Amino acid sequence: MSQTTPPRIIIIGGGFAGLHAARALAGAPAQVTLADRRNHHVFQPLLYQVATAALSPADIASPIRHVLRKVRNCRVVLGELTRVDLARRQLYFEDVAVEYDYLILAAGATHSYFGRDDWAPIAPGLKTLEDATELRRRILLAFESAEYEGSEDSRRRALTFAVVGGGPTGVELAGAIKEIAAQTMPADFRFIDTTTTRVLLLQGADRLLPSYPPDLSERARRDLETMGVEVRLNARVTDISSEGVRVGEEFIPASNVFWAAGVRASPISATLGVPLDRSGRVIVAPDLSIPGHPEVFVCGDLAAATSAGSGLPVPGVAQGAIQAGTFVGSLLSRELDAIARGKTAPPRPAFSYFDKGNMATIGRGRAVAQIGRLHFAGMLAWLLWGLVHVMFLVSFRNRIMVMLSWFWNYMIFSRDARLIIGNSRLNITLPRDDPVRPRPTETAA
Amino acid sequence: MSQTTPPRIIIIGGGFAGLHAARALAGAPAQVTLADRRNHHVFQPLLYQVATAALSPADIASPIRHVLRKVRNCRVVLGELTRVDLARRQLYFEDVAVEYDYLILAAGATHSYFGRDDWAPIAPGLKTLEDATELRRRILLAFESAEYEGSEDSRRRALTFAVVGGGPTGVELAGAIKEIAAQTMPADFRFIDTTTTRVLLLQGADRLLPSYPPDLSERARRDLETMGVEVRLNARVTDISSEGVRVGEEFIPASNVFWAAGVRASPISATLGVPLDRSGRVIVAPDLSIPGHPEVFVCGDLAAATSAGSGLPVPGVAQGAIQAGTFVGSLLSRELDAIARGKTAPPRPAFSYFDKGNMATIGRGRAVAQIGRLHFAGMLAWLLWGLVHVMFLVSFRNRIMVMLSWFWNYMIFSRDARLIIGNSRLNITLPRDDPVRPRPTETAA
Repeated sequence: MSQTTPPRIIIIGGGFAGLHAARALAGAPAQVTLADRRNHHVFQPLLYQVATAALSPADIASPIRHVLRKVRNCRVVLGELTRVDLARRQLYFEDVAVEYDYLILAAGATHSYFGRDDWAPIAPGLKTLEDATELRRRILLAFESAEYEGSEDSRRRALTFAVVGGGPTGVELAGAIKEIAAQTMPADFRFIDTTTTRVLLLQGADRLLPSYPPDLSERARRDLETMGVEVRLNARVTDISSEGVRVGEEFIPASNVFWAAGVRASPISATLGVPLDRSGRVIVAPDLSIPGHPEVFVCGDLAAATSAGSGLPVPGVAQGAIQAGTFVGSLLSRELDAIARGKTAPPRPAFSYFDKGNMATIGRGRAVAQIGRLHFAGMLAWLLWGLVHVMFLVSFRNRIMVMLSWFWNYMIFSRDARLIIGNSRLNITLPRDDPVRPRPTETAA
Repeated sequence: MSQTTPPRIIIIGGGFAGLHAARALAGAPAQVTLADRRNHHVFQPLLYQVATAALSPADIASPIRHVLRKVRNCRVVLGELTRVDLARRQLYFEDVAVEYDYLILAAGATHSYFGRDDWAPIAPGLKTLEDATELRRRILLAFESAEYEGSEDSRRRALTFAVVGGGPTGVELAGAIKEIAAQTMPADFRFIDTTTTRVLLLQGADRLLPSYPPDLSERARRDLETMGVEVRLNARVTDISSEGVRVGEEFIPASNVFWAAGVRASPISATLGVPLDRSGRVIVAPDLSIPGHPEVFVCGDLAAATSAGSGLPVPGVAQGAIQAGTFVGSLLSRELDAIARGKTAPPRPAFSYFDKGNMATIGRGRAVAQIGRLHFAGMLAWLLWGLVHVMFLVSFRNRIMVMLSWFWNYMIFSRDARLIIGNSRLNITLPRDDPVRPRPTETAA
């Protein structure tokens, strides 16, 4: 590193960890580059609201470039990292090689089907905006196809949704689907009663939300059941096909299966040649660097990190990523400042995760939240959840719009982003003597 | 038609004409079915605002089902019509045959490349939400790729946009692209000065907006030029390639070419076996039925209709479609009412188009409008345009949201839907000694 060329820091990933690392590096004597394969940051905790048509993609996403527009020493590039050569300090984007002085890997996680990748096209998961619009497409098409199905069996299958996985995403998705079916859709259809939609939540463990206190797990189960969701605990999914899902020995006919069960680190970790944990995450040192490579840091869902304070693993949640990104950015900023002034770098601190709490929403007016020793449920937890999530949204516009959308939906039970984008082909039949049956209820105001 | 089975009316198309026909048929003694290949109605006059990232797809679209939820005798099906057999009174959706007693064709129009369909993938047009997100993707990627281009020539080409066609869509698109480049983008980029973006509007005729009074055409040209758009009149596009566009003998290097030049009726008209005009539109009788087929009506952009009042052609605009749809729906409703009561149907009236005026927006605070003999331009026309378009939006939610989005954009010059969805692959290079140049302006607050 000469005096004339500032050291080059490359950040991979524009999620919470990458963005916060870049922000913490603002003003540092370095040339920072953030690369992502998408041009936008996605507020992942609200993805399921896009999947269930309550919000539009743009409500929960911002161009990374725009989020970082005031970080003058950082530039943003679109590109997909394919390989890292730690020994040569080089990255490969497709076949373009790029050198770095410091590297911050924050490429996140993807779905894990536990070795059954053939289930992926049948039971899509929820990690990107594209995933969310695909889920939205499938949910809306399910009702459309049920409207034309001739036999009672196929109608029932079309109106059966199985959500695999009882963590926050699974709980939120199952609750929201049931709400759409029970409250948003009824008036729009003529032949089906969408309130009879069956939503199953299949959880392998013996309780929902395993990272939450047991009383909140129990409350979430009870609330979901009150809403009409069938919660199955200790349910091992043994097969998934386009016909339905097999749980142990039982076969449940279902046209719609969604995956919220497992995550695995971005495949980029496998190119590093360093020790990984079972989920493919990089096992990092206390300062979040790769042991033996103090110039390479890993944060967010890509890292298997241990909190210095508690000795517990850092959880794969937004807060974990935000705190780790800020930690690494600040550490590096101090270090480079010292070097630029000709001083020795200060000793590196160890990363300590501060648990601000956990919250998951279940439905309108229903949520569970744990903050320190306090446990909340019901309307209070839901308002808290709404407030916290809106406040976290990256840009100001998003905050206002999201708030208005929610408030509006809350009042009228509507979901206004019900657009099927992409393939909407159905095999329709319109039998000649099909009477236009009057609907049982005429309550729409 | 027996007493027990009400006659079956099938409406093809959920655009302005189809929706208004269905609404006018509410309460009629008939079994109404509206079929569309999309689940949503799109407010086409604002599509360019989605293409230019000011609005989200959901802001200008509503599920057709939801729009018609209170029309109890109408059901909505998803399906793509492939053929009409007028003699047998049958429709074909793929290979499913469906019979009708009355048919209302409102399948709209698509792009016409005047026999150069090979231009379509290079120069996409703007008719559907998918088109709009594709244009948005291309516009945003143009700036991204310019940021990495090595040579001045390729950077200039990446930052050159050519819009072919000087009707309302072309004018609105060209103005909005120039605004994005000049006002929204500058602060987000480090290496390019997006204010140097070149936008050309290529018009074959001798003035812009040929359906407007000449003074407003002239005003639109002057306003666009003030904003920095290069307007070329009498410009015949002779070739389009991925390298650029040829106008007469001149070749203009441009990576981004958009098509707003020609429309042609939906290909469904060709399956009817009845006389069509040059654009493939069905030549209809004064009551908008197909001559010799009083049970089949055509309205909206699919019809070549003449207004009984003026003897002029009914223009292919939203108002023409709305009025024609309402006319056909009401006519049929009265006719079926009479028949149901055992009376003879009243004689059919002739359709008369009422011209409420025309308006096109050019940029922030700039528009042109003609209402009767009054001509407006500038800020007043722009406010008028905003008011009228917001009022027209189909659902209440959309009105509020669109208004807020606009107001917000108006104040901060931002465009918040800048998401590249779909393929965003670029060939990036990060040369080792690339300095992070300070930007010339540091005005972002």
